[in-house]
Amino acid sequence: MFQRIKSSDYRVLHPRPVYLIVSGGEGRYNVMAASWVTPLSEEPPRLGVAIDRESYTYELIHKYKEFTVNVVDLSLIDKVWYVGTRSGRKEDKIKVTGLTLHQSNKIKVPGLADALAFIECRVVEEVHVGEVALFIADILEIHVKPEFYDPKRGWDFKKARILLHISGRAFTYPSRIIYARSK
Amino acid sequence: MFQRIKSSDYRVLHPRPVYLIVSGGEGRYNVMAASWVTPLSEEPPRLGVAIDRESYTYELIHKYKEFTVNVVDLSLIDKVWYVGTRSGRKEDKIKVTGLTLHQSNKIKVPGLADALAFIECRVVEEVHVGEVALFIADILEIHVKPEFYDPKRGWDFKKARILLHISGRAFTYPSRIIYARSK
Repeated sequence: MFQRIKSSDYRVLHPRPVYLIVSGGEGRYNVMAASWVTPLSEEPPRLGVAIDRESYTYELIHKYKEFTVNVVDLSLIDKVWYVGTRSGRKEDKIKVTGLTLHQSNKIKVPGLADALAFIECRVVEEVHVGEVALFIADILEIHVKPEFYDPKRGWDFKKARILLHISGRAFTYPSRIIYARSK
Repeated sequence: MFQRIKSSDYRVLHPRPVYLIVSGGEGRYNVMAASWVTPLSEEPPRLGVAIDRESYTYELIHKYKEFTVNVVDLSLIDKVWYVGTRSGRKEDKIKVTGLTLHQSNKIKVPGLADALAFIECRVVEEVHVGEVALFIADILEIHVKPEFYDPKRGWDFKKARILLHISGRAFTYPSRIIYARSK
C-alpha cells in the first residue's frame, strides 16, 4: 500500500507558498526565494523562515536581524526562479530582475512593490537545525494590496494566484475554493 | 498602493498544506489538523510543527516525543475540518471519523492508511514561541502511495489533489503545473 522513499525527500511536503525574502542593510539589499516558511504564533505574531547557513541571505539576516517576507503571485515565477538559483554575493539580483523596493514602516529593510503583500520582520531567535538557521521573528507590520486582499475575508483567489513551489522549475497556484461540511 | 492589516492576520501566509498529525502512546492515539508545518533541514532530514500548547496533541507529543505527519488530499476535507475543530480530550476522533491507522516502522505512533503519504517523526527539540510549541523533529521514514508519488518525479498532481488550507472552512488544492523559464 505504501512504499518507503528517502527521508530527505522534502518534496512530499510541497507544494507550498514560495516567498521573496529581502534582507540587508546600509542601503544594500538582497532578495532570495524561500518556501520553508511558516506562521508560528498569534500572541505575539511571529513566523519562522529556514535559511541555508551558507547563503548570503543568512549572513545578512544574522547581521542586521531584519527582513521582509514578500507574498508573490504567478506573474513573478521567472524572477522567483532567478533569485532562487543565484547568489547575491556575485550580483545585485534586485537590479538584474528589475524588482522595485518599497519602504517599510518599522524596519530599514524594504519590501517589494511587485508583491501582493509584504511582512516586516525582526528576528527574536535563531535556531540551528542541520544545515539551516530557522529565524524566528516578530511580525511587526503586514501590508497588503487591497485589490487582492480584504481585511475581512482574506485573499481573493479569483485575482490572487499565490505562487506555490513544487520542486525545481515546477510551480503551481491555488485552484478553486472548496468548503468543508460538518459531519 | 499597500494597506496595513493586523500583524496577527496569518491568513496572508495561506493557503498552505494542511496535515493530519497523529500522536499518543500506549495504544491510545489522537489525530488533529495542522498547517503550520515546514521542512527544516536535509542533513539530517528534519521538519517543524507548531502546535498550540493548550491542545491535547501538545500534551501527547510533549510526553511521548513521537508523531506522524500525514499528507492528505481533497477527499478528506470534511474529516480534516472535524478533527481540526474538536478536542481529543473529549472524544476518540479516530473512531468517530472512521480513519484507519497504519503501523509505522521506527516509532510506536501509527500513520493513517487514508493518507497519500505519512512521515514518522521523533522530536529533537521543543521551542516555545508565543502560545505554541514548535516541535523540531527527525524525519525517520517517509511512506508514500506509489500511485500518487513517484520517487523520481514526486507528486503526480493529476491524481494527488493535496489539500491546502485557506481559512476557516475554506480549502483549495493545486491547480496546473507551470514551469519557470530562465531569463
